[in-house]
Amino acid sequence: MPAPTTRVALGVSYNGQRYNGWQSQPSGNTVQDHLEAALGRFATQEVATICAGRTDAGVHGLMQVVHFDTPLSRTPFSWVRGTNTFLPPDIAVQWAQPVPDAFHSRACATARRYAYVLLQSPVRPSVEAGRVGWVFHPLDGDAMRMAALHLLGEHDFTSFRASACQAKSPVKTLHHIDVRRRGEGDTCYWRFEFEGNAFLHHMVRNIMGCLIAVGQGLKPPAWIAEVLAARSRDAAAPTFAPDGLYFLGPVYDAAWGLPARTAAYDWLP
Amino acid sequence: MPAPTTRVALGVSYNGQRYNGWQSQPSGNTVQDHLEAALGRFATQEVATICAGRTDAGVHGLMQVVHFDTPLSRTPFSWVRGTNTFLPPDIAVQWAQPVPDAFHSRACATARRYAYVLLQSPVRPSVEAGRVGWVFHPLDGDAMRMAALHLLGEHDFTSFRASACQAKSPVKTLHHIDVRRRGEGDTCYWRFEFEGNAFLHHMVRNIMGCLIAVGQGLKPPAWIAEVLAARSRDAAAPTFAPDGLYFLGPVYDAAWGLPARTAAYDWLP
Repeated sequence: MPAPTTRVALGVSYNGQRYNGWQSQPSGNTVQDHLEAALGRFATQEVATICAGRTDAGVHGLMQVVHFDTPLSRTPFSWVRGTNTFLPPDIAVQWAQPVPDAFHSRACATARRYAYVLLQSPVRPSVEAGRVGWVFHPLDGDAMRMAALHLLGEHDFTSFRASACQAKSPVKTLHHIDVRRRGEGDTCYWRFEFEGNAFLHHMVRNIMGCLIAVGQGLKPPAWIAEVLAARSRDAAAPTFAPDGLYFLGPVYDAAWGLPARTAAYDWLP
Repeated sequence: MPAPTTRVALGVSYNGQRYNGWQSQPSGNTVQDHLEAALGRFATQEVATICAGRTDAGVHGLMQVVHFDTPLSRTPFSWVRGTNTFLPPDIAVQWAQPVPDAFHSRACATARRYAYVLLQSPVRPSVEAGRVGWVFHPLDGDAMRMAALHLLGEHDFTSFRASACQAKSPVKTLHHIDVRRRGEGDTCYWRFEFEGNAFLHHMVRNIMGCLIAVGQGLKPPAWIAEVLAARSRDAAAPTFAPDGLYFLGPVYDAAWGLPARTAAYDWLP
């Protein structure tokens, strides 16, 4: 009979600039590789994790959630502190919590949230290099908001799906898209926030490419409806850069009692 | 007779994490080294710059201002674009402007502004590693604000001065210190903003060490007045980390007509 195990959930934040995305790869240097290596050193045994939402190379995570099963009995904060000792400076476990065996970080997530932060400036990023996308030409916020309305609700998002996408169905539901501007004049930041039940591979970056085309006046807002109806990747704009993309984290039923993401993250990338 | 020259002012922003501070060094890899190398490649001749305020290793600049003299005639934006082509991704010229020969980036600055961004959290920084200071224990904002009042106005700041400081006089005037909190609960960000006529070497980081000692309840707010009166570095708390320090830039008389710093930078580190 195997030893009884406890299921533990972790909240993890990371700056994705130096990593080859979330998911373990033979070539290594992914966030999952570093996390599992650190958990393994703290636990002195192998630990396999499952995450709520994979992120691509260069994409950041503000509150990724993972779970794993362990025969060890440790206090929640000792998982946090012990694992962080072995993690690189740009990855940190934020909280740990024992959860019922029925909890599954991916399957139990009822929604996912992403933010995209964009620098609009005649000059490329510097202080914020690798952490914001960049557009040279001024954007029209109202046009982008009108375009975004066409994407809300349940749709076949094939036009916004990477060819490598492994999702079973291209039908997803977007609950909201919020477009906010910070700063006046030529130079400002834009923050786009997306919430949906699930997202296809590259879906946010492909939507960003299209919203920016509308924001720059290259396409009218109603063009987004045409792109959606075409159900073809060829209809959409090119995939936008990963730099400004932040996985804000999954949403779970409050009954699981997991910590909420801190509001302090709302603007700070 | 030497060729007539034009004086040009530049606004420069940089993430200081990878650099050995602002000022040129024989060992290289300073922000000034990279800027002058890039200006030299664009101008195809040596360019020597003078800055408004040097920054230490690891300290960031949101709007450093430099000036230089050149026999070349280029449009302002060609200085920006041309120089940025040869700069690393975390340094960028934001604007260029011809100025009268009487303009001097350091001597004409009537004030300087700095911000310090601090993460208060049981967990060390991750996404924001290298760009925020960190405190484990919760801080008392009102106590820090009361302590800061003792520093406003003209004082001998010897207690907050690094031994290597080259300033002629330790007497400086602080115009204001602003302490703001963002986020609720255990985990939040604090932003301290300082404006003064000039600052001694390590002055902001030494003040930060003392304000944090007060914020954590290790010292009462009035202790800051004692530290100031002692005129001895031994009286103050240790120098705080450079990571969260941002040189917001110098203040000039509006008659020089130089661009203002963008408000978008107010929170984004």
